[in-house]
This record gives sequence, C-alpha cells and structure tokens, in this order.
Amino acid sequence: MAGLRLYTRCVNLRNPTRYLNFSSTTRFMSEQSYRTERDTFGELRVPSDRYWGAQTQRSLQNFDIGGPTERLPPPLIKAFGVLKKAASIVNAEYGLDPKIAGAIQQAADDVISGKLIDHFPLVVFQTGSGTQSNMNCNEVISNRAIEILGGEKGSKKPVHPNDHVNMSQSSNDTFPTAMHVAAVTEISRNLIPALTELRDALEEKSKAFEHIIKIGRTHLQDATPLTLGQEFSGYVQQVTNGIDRVKDVLPRLSKLAQGGTAVGTGLNTKKGFDVKVAAEISKLTGLEFQTAPNKFEALACHDALVEAHGALNVIACSLMKIANDIRFLGSGPRCGFGELSLPENEPGSSIMPGKVNPTQCEAVTMVAAQVMGNQTAVSVAGANGQFELNVFKPVIIKNVLQSIRLLSDASRSFTKHCVVGIQANEQRISHLLNESLMLATILNSHLGYDNVAKAAKKAHKEGTTLKVATTSLGFLTPEEFDQKVRPELMLYPDEA
Amino acid sequence: MAGLRLYTRCVNLRNPTRYLNFSSTTRFMSEQSYRTERDTFGELRVPSDRYWGAQTQRSLQNFDIGGPTERLPPPLIKAFGVLKKAASIVNAEYGLDPKIAGAIQQAADDVISGKLIDHFPLVVFQTGSGTQSNMNCNEVISNRAIEILGGEKGSKKPVHPNDHVNMSQSSNDTFPTAMHVAAVTEISRNLIPALTELRDALEEKSKAFEHIIKIGRTHLQDATPLTLGQEFSGYVQQVTNGIDRVKDVLPRLSKLAQGGTAVGTGLNTKKGFDVKVAAEISKLTGLEFQTAPNKFEALACHDALVEAHGALNVIACSLMKIANDIRFLGSGPRCGFGELSLPENEPGSSIMPGKVNPTQCEAVTMVAAQVMGNQTAVSVAGANGQFELNVFKPVIIKNVLQSIRLLSDASRSFTKHCVVGIQANEQRISHLLNESLMLATILNSHLGYDNVAKAAKKAHKEGTTLKVATTSLGFLTPEEFDQKVRPELMLYPDEA
Amino acid sequence: MAGLRLYTRCVNLRNPTRYLNFSSTTRFMSEQSYRTERDTFGELRVPSDRYWGAQTQRSLQNFDIGGPTERLPPPLIKAFGVLKKAASIVNAEYGLDPKIAGAIQQAADDVISGKLIDHFPLVVFQTGSGTQSNMNCNEVISNRAIEILGGEKGSKKPVHPNDHVNMSQSSNDTFPTAMHVAAVTEISRNLIPALTELRDALEEKSKAFEHIIKIGRTHLQDATPLTLGQEFSGYVQQVTNGIDRVKDVLPRLSKLAQGGTAVGTGLNTKKGFDVKVAAEISKLTGLEFQTAPNKFEALACHDALVEAHGALNVIACSLMKIANDIRFLGSGPRCGFGELSLPENEPGSSIMPGKVNPTQCEAVTMVAAQVMGNQTAVSVAGANGQFELNVFKPVIIKNVLQSIRLLSDASRSFTKHCVVGIQANEQRISHLLNESLMLATILNSHLGYDNVAKAAKKAHKEGTTLKVATTSLGFLTPEEFDQKVRPELMLYPDEA
Amino acid sequence: MAGLRLYTRCVNLRNPTRYLNFSSTTRFMSEQSYRTERDTFGELRVPSDRYWGAQTQRSLQNFDIGGPTERLPPPLIKAFGVLKKAASIVNAEYGLDPKIAGAIQQAADDVISGKLIDHFPLVVFQTGSGTQSNMNCNEVISNRAIEILGGEKGSKKPVHPNDHVNMSQSSNDTFPTAMHVAAVTEISRNLIPALTELRDALEEKSKAFEHIIKIGRTHLQDATPLTLGQEFSGYVQQVTNGIDRVKDVLPRLSKLAQGGTAVGTGLNTKKGFDVKVAAEISKLTGLEFQTAPNKFEALACHDALVEAHGALNVIACSLMKIANDIRFLGSGPRCGFGELSLPENEPGSSIMPGKVNPTQCEAVTMVAAQVMGNQTAVSVAGANGQFELNVFKPVIIKNVLQSIRLLSDASRSFTKHCVVGIQANEQRISHLLNESLMLATILNSHLGYDNVAKAAKKAHKEGTTLKVATTSLGFLTPEEFDQKVRPELMLYPDEA
Repeated sequence: MAGLRLYTRCVNLRNPTRYLNFSSTTRFMSEQSYRTERDTFGELRVPSDRYWGAQTQRSLQNFDIGGPTERLPPPLIKAFGVLKKAASIVNAEYGLDPKIAGAIQQAADDVISGKLIDHFPLVVFQTGSGTQSNMNCNEVISNRAIEILGGEKGSKKPVHPNDHVNMSQSSNDTFPTAMHVAAVTEISRNLIPALTELRDALEEKSKAFEHIIKIGRTHLQDATPLTLGQEFSGYVQQVTNGIDRVKDVLPRLSKLAQGGTAVGTGLNTKKGFDVKVAAEISKLTGLEFQTAPNKFEALACHDALVEAHGALNVIACSLMKIANDIRFLGSGPRCGFGELSLPENEPGSSIMPGKVNPTQCEAVTMVAAQVMGNQTAVSVAGANGQFELNVFKPVIIKNVLQSIRLLSDASRSFTKHCVVGIQANEQRISHLLNESLMLATILNSHLGYDNVAKAAKKAHKEGTTLKVATTSLGFLTPEEFDQKVRPELMLYPDEA
Repeated sequence: MAGLRLYTRCVNLRNPTRYLNFSSTTRFMSEQSYRTERDTFGELRVPSDRYWGAQTQRSLQNFDIGGPTERLPPPLIKAFGVLKKAASIVNAEYGLDPKIAGAIQQAADDVISGKLIDHFPLVVFQTGSGTQSNMNCNEVISNRAIEILGGEKGSKKPVHPNDHVNMSQSSNDTFPTAMHVAAVTEISRNLIPALTELRDALEEKSKAFEHIIKIGRTHLQDATPLTLGQEFSGYVQQVTNGIDRVKDVLPRLSKLAQGGTAVGTGLNTKKGFDVKVAAEISKLTGLEFQTAPNKFEALACHDALVEAHGALNVIACSLMKIANDIRFLGSGPRCGFGELSLPENEPGSSIMPGKVNPTQCEAVTMVAAQVMGNQTAVSVAGANGQFELNVFKPVIIKNVLQSIRLLSDASRSFTKHCVVGIQANEQRISHLLNESLMLATILNSHLGYDNVAKAAKKAHKEGTTLKVATTSLGFLTPEEFDQKVRPELMLYPDEA
Repeated sequence: MAGLRLYTRCVNLRNPTRYLNFSSTTRFMSEQSYRTERDTFGELRVPSDRYWGAQTQRSLQNFDIGGPTERLPPPLIKAFGVLKKAASIVNAEYGLDPKIAGAIQQAADDVISGKLIDHFPLVVFQTGSGTQSNMNCNEVISNRAIEILGGEKGSKKPVHPNDHVNMSQSSNDTFPTAMHVAAVTEISRNLIPALTELRDALEEKSKAFEHIIKIGRTHLQDATPLTLGQEFSGYVQQVTNGIDRVKDVLPRLSKLAQGGTAVGTGLNTKKGFDVKVAAEISKLTGLEFQTAPNKFEALACHDALVEAHGALNVIACSLMKIANDIRFLGSGPRCGFGELSLPENEPGSSIMPGKVNPTQCEAVTMVAAQVMGNQTAVSVAGANGQFELNVFKPVIIKNVLQSIRLLSDASRSFTKHCVVGIQANEQRISHLLNESLMLATILNSHLGYDNVAKAAKKAHKEGTTLKVATTSLGFLTPEEFDQKVRPELMLYPDEA
Repeated sequence: MAGLRLYTRCVNLRNPTRYLNFSSTTRFMSEQSYRTERDTFGELRVPSDRYWGAQTQRSLQNFDIGGPTERLPPPLIKAFGVLKKAASIVNAEYGLDPKIAGAIQQAADDVISGKLIDHFPLVVFQTGSGTQSNMNCNEVISNRAIEILGGEKGSKKPVHPNDHVNMSQSSNDTFPTAMHVAAVTEISRNLIPALTELRDALEEKSKAFEHIIKIGRTHLQDATPLTLGQEFSGYVQQVTNGIDRVKDVLPRLSKLAQGGTAVGTGLNTKKGFDVKVAAEISKLTGLEFQTAPNKFEALACHDALVEAHGALNVIACSLMKIANDIRFLGSGPRCGFGELSLPENEPGSSIMPGKVNPTQCEAVTMVAAQVMGNQTAVSVAGANGQFELNVFKPVIIKNVLQSIRLLSDASRSFTKHCVVGIQANEQRISHLLNESLMLATILNSHLGYDNVAKAAKKAHKEGTTLKVATTSLGFLTPEEFDQKVRPELMLYPDEA
C-alpha cells in the first residue's frame, strides 16, 4: 500500500450531481441524464434535473478548487434570491412584462426558501467579482420561471437569464448587494439574538453570584477580593458592548451597491432604480437598507465588510477571554482553581469520576482563533481592490458569513451547554478567600503597615493563615480579627 | 415577509442523517430507524444505518456549531484509519487476538478508502483535543468490525471501541498523530505534485519566451529591459523554492506523538509501541515517519504545524505575486499593459469581444488571502496550548489541510486553465520597448550624460521616440542609433 | 573580522543615561553622578539629573528588551500627565494638602508639555499591567514636585510617589485610563484632521477632474467609461467613511477605567472619585470622557482598543487601495497606464528624465501593511486577558498609537507630497478611451448585437479602432459614428 | 487648556539634528551651521556636522512619517556598511582606484562599527525600494572617505557617492542584499545564542526537577502524573526545535541579490561581480553567503524573509506557551496552582509580602503578540511585489529585525531574570498529587473498574482523599493502598 494518497478527490465537479450525496454516487451515476445549455462560448451538457445553465456548468469545470465545503454559503444565495425578487418588482414598474416578472418572483421565492440550494454548486474560488454566481442565480431563476410558465428548461424562453432576471443589473452591483444583504440579515437575525441569549445567561449568573465573595486575581496572583457576581458582570459588559459594536456597523453595511451596474455609473439602468430596489429589499427582509451614496466606492472596495469583520473580531476576543476565565476557574477538580463547576456534558474519561473537560469553552476558543484568522483574510482581500472593482468579493463574504455563523452557533452552544449550568463551589471559594494574605490590606489603618507586613510575612513563611499569624503575634484577638478583616468591606469604594 | 431570516438552519444535527443530503431530507425523515447505543453517560438513539456510537452522537448534539461544511476534513479521517490499522497490527504483536485485530484492520481499510466518510459527522468546533473524533473512529471501526465478524452493531462485542480499537492509545496521542500523518501525506501526495506541475508549466513558458525582449518595470515605472523569459524565470524560482520550503518542514512534521498516551509519559502503553507504530505507518503510507523524540512536546504544542503553515503562507505570498503580475501584464486589451494574452475560459461580457477576465488569477489571489488568514488562525491556536495539552487541535489541522488543498487545487487550476495557455503579444511588447526612453541608458558612454538627457527630455516632452529625438538633435544618424541602441545588449552583466 | 556581530547593543540600559544620546555616550559616561533611591526591595543608584526613582531604575535593569525605539510612546506619557493632574485636582477636593496638590499639578504640566519625556525611559516589554510606567510617572512627578517645593529628590518628602501622586489610584486603573486618554486624543487631534486634509485634497481633485472621461477598468480589463472625477469620488467616500469609522469608536473608547483601582471594585478610593476624574480629564483635554459603566470590564479586557484598531485597520485597507490605484494610473511614462502624472519629489534615476517613482504611494502602502500587522498583534493581546486584569496593556497601546501616528503622518505626507500635485494626462486618457472597444456597447440598440460584435471583433483582430472597423464595414459613416458613439452618454443611468 | 494635543511633534525632521537629542533641542538649534549639498533636483542645506548629502536630506523632508523610532534599524545600516566594503574590495579588483577603494573601506568600517549611526536618519516609510537609504549610505561613506582623503564634504571629490561607492550596484540589489546580510547576521549572532541560553537554562531545570512527580493537566483538568522534569523537557524540545527552525531558513536567506542591479539582469555590472561580492561578505562576516541563483526572484519578491519570519513566528508561539505555563504554575501564592516559585525581581505590591508578579512571563508573551502581528505585516508586504521589484522592502526588514531582536532580548531576559531562578514548591506539588483522584487509574487492574469508580466518586463527593475513600470502603488497607498507588509507576510505558 506504498504511495497511498490520503486525499481522494471524492467528488467530480465535472459531473456535479455526484457531490450532492457522495455516499451514493454510484447509484446516481448510471441514472443521470443531461440536457444541452449554451452561452456565447458554445454548448455544454448539464444534468437534466438541475436548473443551472451553461455559465454555471462552465465555472464548475474551470474552478475545481476546494470542493463542496468551499461552496458559497447559503445566506448569500438566499440574499441573491431576495435581490432578484426585488429587482423584478421594480423592473415591472419600469415596464417588464408582468407575467415574466411574476414568474421570476415565484422562482426567487424558491431560492429564498432554500429549496433550490442544491442548484448553487459554485465555490468561493472562482471569478473575483462573483459573476458566475450571479449568472448561476440568473440561470436557476430563469429556468425555474420557464418551468412555472410551462416552457422548456434551457430554451431561455420566455424568461431569459440576462434580459429578464438580470435586467438593469450587472454582476458588479448584484454581488456586493447580496453580500451586504446577507451580512446584515445574518447579523440581525442570527448573531445579535445569539449574543443576547449569552449576555442574558451571563447576567443571570452575575445576579445569582452577587453574594459570593472571592479572591481577585491580577497577574494570575492573589489580589483583593470581589464578588463572583462582579466578575461575571465584566463578562456581561463585554457581550453587551459586542452587541453594540455590530449594531454600530450596520449603518454603513446597509448601504447597497445596486444601481451602480458595471463600473458605478449606473449605465444601462434607470434613474431611481437604485432607491426603489433598496426600498423593496427593506420591505422583503424587514430590515433597513438604503442605496449607497457613492456607487464607485461600493463596487471598488469592501471597507464596510472589513469594518464589520473588525467588530466580529472584537467579539471573538471577548469570547476567548470569557471562555478562558471560565475554564480556568473550573479547573480541577482537585489540583486547579476549582471555583466553578461546569456542566458535565460527555464522558471526560472512562476512568475518572469528577473529570469534566471544559469542552464548550474549548469550542468557543477555537471559534475565536478562526475568527481572528478570518480577520486577516478579510483585510488582505479588502485592501486589494483595483480601479473600479474589488475582485476578492467571494472570499470576503465567505469569511464574514463564516465568522457570523461560528460566533452565533458558538454563543448559543456555550450558553445552553455551559453558562446556564455553571455552579459556584462556594465552599472552595470561601476557603481560598480565607487562605489569602491579601485581606491584610484592610488592617493597614489599624495596625500600621509595618506590623501588617510582619504578620503577612510570618503567615507566608509558616504557611498559616493571616488570622493565626496576627493573633499569635499578639496584634489582635481572634474576635478582633474576625470583626476587622471582613472581605465584604473591600468590594466598593469608600463613602466619600 | 418582514422578519425573514436568510439563514435557515438547514440541518438538524440532533437528527444527523438529515444533513447527509439536505435536498432530500423529508424522504429520509420518515424512513429512519434507530438503534440504541450507550456510553458512561447513558443511552442514546443512533440512526440504524450509521456505524457511529453514543459518544459521536452525543457530540453531534452538544456541538451544533457551523454545520456540515465545518466537519473535520476527509484527509484527517483517512489518517485516523491508517493509524488505527497500524496500531492494530502492532497490538497484535503485543497479544491482541488476531481475529479481532484482523477485523479492525479490514474496517480501518474502509475508513482509509473513504467509503465510510459519511460516518464521520463531527465538526471542528468540538473538544479541543479531538477526543470525540477519536471516539468516532473507534466506534465506527468497532461497529464495522463487529459487522464483519457477524456481531450486532452497538453490542461492543466482540470488538470494543476502547479496549480493542483504542488499545494502548489515548485521544491525546492519536489525534496529533493523525494530524501529522494527514498533513505530511497531503503535502507529499497533493501539494508538491501540484506545485511541480505549476513550476514545470512556468518553466516551459520561461523557455518559450527567452527570446522576447521587453521593458522592465520597477516601482511600476519603465526601467531597463529584460526578456520575458527572464521575468518568468523569477516565478519558476519562487515555486521551486516553495517546493523546497514544504519539503524542509517534513522532518519535524513526520515526528509522531503516538505512544505518549494521555500526558506524554506513555502510561498504559508498552515500551517500543511508539517506534513500531511509526514504522507501520511509514509502511502503510509509503512515507517516512518517526516517533517523536519528546512526547510531552508532541502533545502540548503544535509548533510543527505552525511551522508547516508558515511554509504554506510563503507559497501563498509567491502565488499572489505571480498571479498579480500575470493579470497586470494581461490587462487590456487596449487600455492596459497588454503584453500577455491569457486563455479565454468563459464569457467575460456578453457585449465585448476581446474582453477576457483573468479569472484564474483572481481565484489564485483569493486563495492566497485565505491562506494568509489561516496563518493567523493557526498561530493563535498554536500559541495557546496549556500544560500537557494543546486543545486547539481540530482548528489547527482544519486550517492546515484547507490551506494545503486550496493551494494544491489552485495551482493545478491555474496551470491548466491559465499558465499553459499564456501567449506573448510580441508586437505589443516590442512596441512598448521601442517607445521606452530607458534604452537611452546605453548611450551614456557614447554621447555623454548631458546630451543623452537632452535627447530623452526632448522625446518625453514632444512625445516622440528616442530615435527621433536623437537624430533630430543631430547626435546620431538613424543607422547609428539602430546600431548602438540594442536592448539585447542590456540583458546581462558585462564581460569582466 | 570573522564573527562580526552586526548588532552592537548600542545602549546600556543598566546605565540608562547612555542611550539618551548614543552618539555622545562617552562624554556623558565620565561626567555622570548618581543619587540613591530606594523601594521595598532596597537601594539603587539613579543618575542625579533624572527625576525617576528606584522602581523605574529597577525596571530598566530587569527589562533590557528592544532598546530605546521600544519605549512607551510620548502620547501615553502625556496622557499619564493629564491623568495625574486630574487626580490631584480631585484628591484636593477630598482633602489632599493644597500645597502638595499644587506642586503635583505643576509637575504634571511638565509631563504634559513633553519637557520631561527623557525621564520616561521604560520600554513596552515590561510588566503587562504597565505598573512600572505608572510608578515611573509617580516618581518623576513626586521628585519634580519636591524640587518645586524646595525639597531633595529621592527623599519622598514632602511629596510621596505612592501616597500623594498615586493617591486613590492603582496601576491597574491608571494605565488603562492613560491608554484611552492617549488614543482618544491622538485620534481626535491627529488622525481625524489628517484624514480630513486628505479627504479634502481628494475631493478637490475629484471636482477638478469631473469633466475628464476615461476608460473604466474592472478585473483590470477595459470596461465602460466613467469620469476621472467619479473615480476619485470613490476615494473621497472611502476616506469620509474612515473618518466616520474612527468617530464611531470614540463612545466606547472615551470610557475610563479610573476608579476601579486594583481589581475593579474601587477599594481604597472614594465614591464619586471616578466620575470627578473623568470630568476633570474632559476639562483638561477639551474632549469628552466618561467613567466606565463597569470597571471590571475596563481592567480585565481592552475590547475598546481592539475595536478602535479595527477602524484603523479599515483605514489602512482604504489607503492601500487608493495608493495602489494612483500608482498604477501613474505608471509609465511610456509603458504603463500613464493616465496620471504624480509630483516628482526626488530623483528617480540619474539617467532617465521622466522617471518618477510613486514613492509617496509606496510609503502609504508600507504603512498599510504595518497597520494590518498591528491589527493581529492587538487582537492576540486583547484576547488574552486573565481574570481581573489584561496584562498585555503596553503592547496594545503601543500598537494602537503607532497605527494612529503612521496613518496620520502618511495621510499628511501623501496629501502634501502627492495628492495635491496629481495631474491628469488628458491626452493619454482621451487616446485610451478612443482606442477602447468597450464603447461599442452603446451601438447595440442601433446596429444590433451581431453587427456590433462583428465590428468589434474586426477592430480587435486588425488592431484598428472601432470607428475604422464600423465604417469600413459600411455600418456607419464617420459622422454617424461620431454622433452616436459618445462616451459622455455612458456616465449615468438613463432617465426613467 | 481645552484642545490640548497630547502628541507634540517633538522632532522637526526638516532640521534633522533636532531629534538626535530631543531633550536638548534648543541648545543645538541656535548653534547649528549648514553646508550646501546638491543632487539632480537642486541644492539643499545639510547640517555641517552630518555626513549625509542631498538625497538623504530630501528624503527627510519628504517622508515625515513616524519620527525617529521608525528609523531603519542599526543592523541594516551595519549590513550596508559590510556590503559597501565588500563591493569596494571587489571593485578594486575590477579597476577602481586603490586609494579611493581604501578610503571607502575605511569609511565603511565606521559604518560597521556603529560610530556613524546618527548619520542614518531615514525612516522605514520612504521609497519602497529603500533607494534613499542606499543613497544615504553612499553619501555618508563618500563624505567620510572624502574627509579621510582630506577633501571637502559635499564636493563629491575625490569619492563620488554614485560613481565610486555605488559602483556596479543599484539600490534594487543593494537593499535586498543588506536585508539578507542583516537578517542572517542577527539570527546567527543574536537570536541563536539567546535561544541556546534559554534552552540550556530550561534543560538544567528539567534535570533538576526530574525526581519531582506532579499531577498532569490536560484540558486544565487533573490528569495522570508526570515529573516536573518531563514537563520542562517539553519546553526544552520546543526551544531546540526553534533553533533548528531558524537554522533551516538560512540556506535560502543567505542567497544574495547583489549583482542583479536594476531589474535582475546585471546590466552595468561585471560578470563574476555577484559571486565575488558574496564571497567577500562571507569573509567579512564569518558567515556563509552565496550569490542568488536567480536575481529576478531576488529583487521582485522577498519570500526568503517571509519564510524566515515564519520561523520567528513559531518561536513566538513556543515562547507564549512556555511563559503561559510557567506563570500559571507559579500562580498564587495561596489561591493558584502554586507549584513553582518565580524569582521576585521587583515590588509586586507595597502591601502584600509573597505577591510576586510573573513580569518576565508578561514581557515574553507581549513580545510573542508583537511577533505574531509582525508575521501578518511581513506577509502582506511580501505578497505585494510587482513586476521586477517588491517595493515593501523597508517595512519587511524592519519587522524581521524587530522580531529577531525582541525574541533575542526577551529570551535572554527571561532566562536571566526568571528561568534560572525558578524553584519547585515540592510540598505543594506533592500535596496536590496526593489529593488527586486520577491516581485511581492504577487500581483498575486490582479492584476492577466499578469498585474504583465507587471509591473515586465517594472521595469526590465527600471531599476526602482516594486513600480515605478506598480504605473506608474496605477495598484496601492503608498499607495496601500506599503500596499499590504509587505515582512513580505511572511515568513511563510498561515493559513490553
């Protein structure tokens, strides 16, 4: 078996149905029938049961890069559906045959619902303008609309992919429009709710833990005390800010390129088309969109998406901090910090009862690492636009949507399988607090710094508690010690 | 339709068969039957036709993060198959029942061949040690081996996932072993051949173009001439170096963690097991592997993979440079540099003949941006190991394997659909060369700097050629000019 | 000379005066006199003419990392001065001896003015809380205040660095406060004005160029026309958005940690101190600051700075795009795009008149690369806070301030030495426009697609113009061609 | 004081002497005298006591970006000195007047020694080819050589900066040559020795700790035991590998561009010059250099430096892991892991004896974050070369040299101020080990899994030790327990 190649190209994109279910390729193979589609380059065979046409098929053959996992993500495809529907509604106002417009809208609804997702096989690593995916959408909608109207797939009649579905549009303005629609929608409908769930769960813990006084740690070293509730309130603030951060990028992200056509001038479209399409998309999505004030900017760069990813990157950093803290506070059970118990979701070890691995924290921190990497990818891609067009569009939106989804899913998973079940080990927390020598701080005003230092050093050296050291030195009686050294007095500023 | 959520969670990981073919979910839904599997946490329903067991099923339910596109990549699963086969062969030497060992090896072959890929549904964002994927592999192989031996799936008899398939192993050493085996194999069998193809295609062009003298460009400004072949020879050198770079990381990447078990000490395994497994894996793959000299390092960090990705990152930078050059040299047809014609692979525009978009270059540069982002992800993940274990293993190997695959696929696609078809526009190249004022450089020794400067300035100001300016100033006759100003003398150092 | 070590450690931080002027080390060396300072660790010799004390000196000796170029940047030191002055004013309200408070304020003014910058020798790579720099500031101000009051440096009387200058404060809240004050101030007073200058200069060019019609370029290929003014309007929009982006991070960046003291609880400070200090800092700086709503968050993470750097990163991407476009449009003089002439600032070559290297663009793109790198550094540092404290504070603020300064300086330099002097080569632009075959687009409705395609192909094949091809095919007379093929009709959407 | 601008531009690069000692600006200001220098653009005033000439002065005025901390780093300047000396030696072989050559070599020695470092004021953010720094070096050496030969500075006689110092060279080959010479030298003479020190110190600790058995931790949770020496041996291996990694990039990094001149063809130089210069540089530095096999690659990209930084990035990741482990193991003194005591280098708190902040670890991890950021900067810069020249040269070498220096300095500081002084808290380590329930693992074969689980669960629930639980359940006598549960049996694989 020398020379094994571990990576077998398990899909054959030239025969694209194969990858739809690569476990049952063989069955499909023999049954497959084809029809002929054509574009200006000539004819091509397309699987009969697929709605796509020649340009999609040609792209499949020319860009065998990365395989099915690198396909453009579903939210982008659905945003294309929304856009094509909106454009068709507006085009009808400008004179498009209502029957054709109606069929396009019905077909677009099938794209929006996700029913036709298998008909969008193209990968990220194609033309940098996403032209081929725009054509994929035009082809699928036209063929589906033709079918609705009783025509023959591939005939381009009575619904032509370019003349009707792409009417008044260019790949160069549709793709960035779909990018923004997808990003705004996913942030609004997926990420913000997920972060809100997490924030609420953390806040509930913060309240539940507000009476539990624990040792603070700075530089990883014992410091003055705070409540576990205060500690969690920091996490709550981080997630609250994270929600505000993504909300704050929406104003620029909700500006749409549609109406710029090929280079931003709007050639081949109508005055007012841009504003009407943005309004229609707002209506269809229930989210606010406006036409971009400058279409040249909207095609030639993707600063708004680089900015949006900057906000996602901060959320990743926040989640890494929170998850790291929680897993360290839950470390143990005997030889770690042990202040928290995390929910036990799966066997940590077949031998060791009490061994719970902080697996949700691990998933969250891995997501954070991925998002931090995506930040670099998006920045490099965003910085490299040229003249009238940035041609890194697919890789930008892929990374943005991946980051949104991972952060959303991870937040939900973390909330559900970890945060809500966190329990404080009050006995352990209290034990550590009382062990700590940092409480000595409060005695300075009573005994003077030198005496306190003497007591603290003695305790440190002898491995005893502050109380033992202070009382054995005769500075205080045990009762006096208990009365004065009260961590609950160390949790707030003094009254002025 | 207000409130549309563009992203419909199209898979239900709690009912995992759904995502295997999400276009035909409904059909499967009603037909699905289940069996019961159990682990130390209790019982779980698993689809009857799946080989996985309780721990896999539990992970599916607990880590609903990212969906099917985030599953661990096939090369890693296949590497696990290789490892389990190798371990079983060695375990047989140490006393494992040959019948059980044989069945494990046969089942492992099914994993290696890719036949069972649908039985590995777990995503990257799970336990950071990959424990659940190791168990997934143990469960699939044990159930498949049980089936081979005529037993009942889920019975754990006669082949137990832990006691037999995982014998002498721990997730903590198997997962990093599989990471290295997958990375070395993909680099050796996929990336190096793909880069070699690209290098050879570039070299062929370099030779074909060695007689074509063209203007050089530094700072994007006209400079002294070189041949188009020389220009391409720089690309050849870059790719050649890239191949050397990935080869140079193999020594450290081929060191295997296997034998370290849980914390690196090798507890619960046998002396010599590590060396024998590495030898067996070498035999199975036809590639050289050795046991790691220090198992603590091999579990607790993944420096070797960070290093390997560093080499991939350089290749990404090289490809971005080469693809950028080629698309700029091919820019036009009328208003750009226009020195090269790139193959016309798909319609650039339905209106404009002669408009060819450099789409392969665009795909390559998008791949480069992704790999540069992955570099950050891998570095962040690699830097954050803790004590005896780095728990960013899945996200590290996912990024490494994605980068390898994208670079491999993009190199092949670029070679096939672009490089081999590049043609030099000799007329245009020659025209630009003769237009250039930089050739004046060679006249300095004949006419003196001041006179040459005068001629060049005159040509620049009047928009004429150097020849016209020089002759109209009476410095040279046209014949003298043609004799002296010969770019072919400017391509090499002077004879000493 | 075998074994040369190119890097001579040119400074000896153990004798810190040496690096203040490393060209004249020797002279200082012999003259230097010292005084003794002490902290709880013991005594140390400090150069007599330095205001710093024992803790600063100790840090110099313990962190010999990076040398003088890695010192904490002046804006941070000055922000510390502002903070110490504000704290002293508020402390006086709470009872601090007015004479001491007054001297502290006077000394703080010397820090703010920059006069004492040489007394802040500590590098970034020290304690991650910046404790030593807080103490550096306390020591310098106390010694300077002692001097003002006629006391003896090093005596800690009558102004004690801890008891008076650091009163009600902790390194853990002062350092992050100074970070935010410095970042907000530099963004407001340095970056925004610089970007506004650049935006205005680009806008002026956009207006000046609004009549110049040129070929558009998408995928680097000839496309439909636009005006040079429209092209520049995209850059204007990018920079305008950039200004909005940094403004939008100010709300969170202007929240101050002061009042949280050691762990966020505010222990050892007074109720209301936090609010009053923020108000005082607002007064001193003329910028709006508020106390942070949650001090635990404000100490334990630096999400606000990671977010702010995200905005800087977008600006870097914008500038890279703009500078790349401009240098490509200025490429030539004969063999490039040649549409723009950039100012000639320095000799490009001693031989070639007309060779102008786009050096300002190169500086800008190098700044962009640096800022994109700093983004990764800040993110890694921001994600790694632990428990009550993030201990990557110095490296975070260093990168943020470096990015702000580089973007500000580069914007000003680019504006002054490049943008304002850009000239359009109208003849070249017009020539390229007329050469272009893309203008054929407008004939489709007159001649039909097939005839236009025939003419365009003929022109492409024969290397002639569209006009020649169209007329020689007998489709149009030269007059008809000139009447119909008018690029000025291709710059806007059609009237509805 | 409203409107304070915190950042006062404290240097005036137009009057460059000011920044040489910005604490004493005023004094210099009045005294400064000037001489006139000229280049092809005209005349410029240069401070009389500076060796630089017109082109340097012009760059100072045109690139007011970043200030003195952004100057090109000393090792690069010194490498330029080496190169100019080597070129002069070779040029003498080819006919350069020996008197002139001798003076150049003597002047170059002054550059190499660092004596003239103040005469190299140019910043990174200048021309992307570093042309102005090459000219700076030519000007300084020519003026110094003129001085040596008794001529007048600025006269260009008898030693001309271009004709003699830059003879047979171009900025385009000298700058990349100096980049490689500087990087190889700093890696060889600074980084590798520093890493070796660190490795040796860690190895010594590993040996000293080889008898100390401690609890292992995976997922931060208690796991099976290992020795503290084994744990440290992982760190030793990481640093050892790091040394190998940088050594492995030297072959490509030691290839020199010199001899390629302007575009890689070697125009204006002599056959053999390239080989001879490389040999001379090897002799001067005592390090191996060779001429690059392809000069086009050597000018147009900097893959070798991107690759080298990839190795530095791995070292950063390694150091972050090691420093994180050590500071966590040293966390406490009472409420953390507490297994290690780190040296107490400075006051952690004026109140708390025993509070030692792991400040060296913090410096190391901040360095790691910076280097990880630099990796992105270098990659972006390295990917963006164009045609015959990469014009991100200064920012690439600045980041590479900064990373080398920071890693070197941090390694030395960490070794000296932390690693050599680490002490194991054997009592604490032993206490935790005995507390742990993971030792139960070893009883499985004696008591059976179910009984062991029962005992472990009992211990976990009741908070007792395993021994108490096992004996109270009557499974073992205390003597039997002590005999069987011996961690020292859990440190190695079983005998086969």
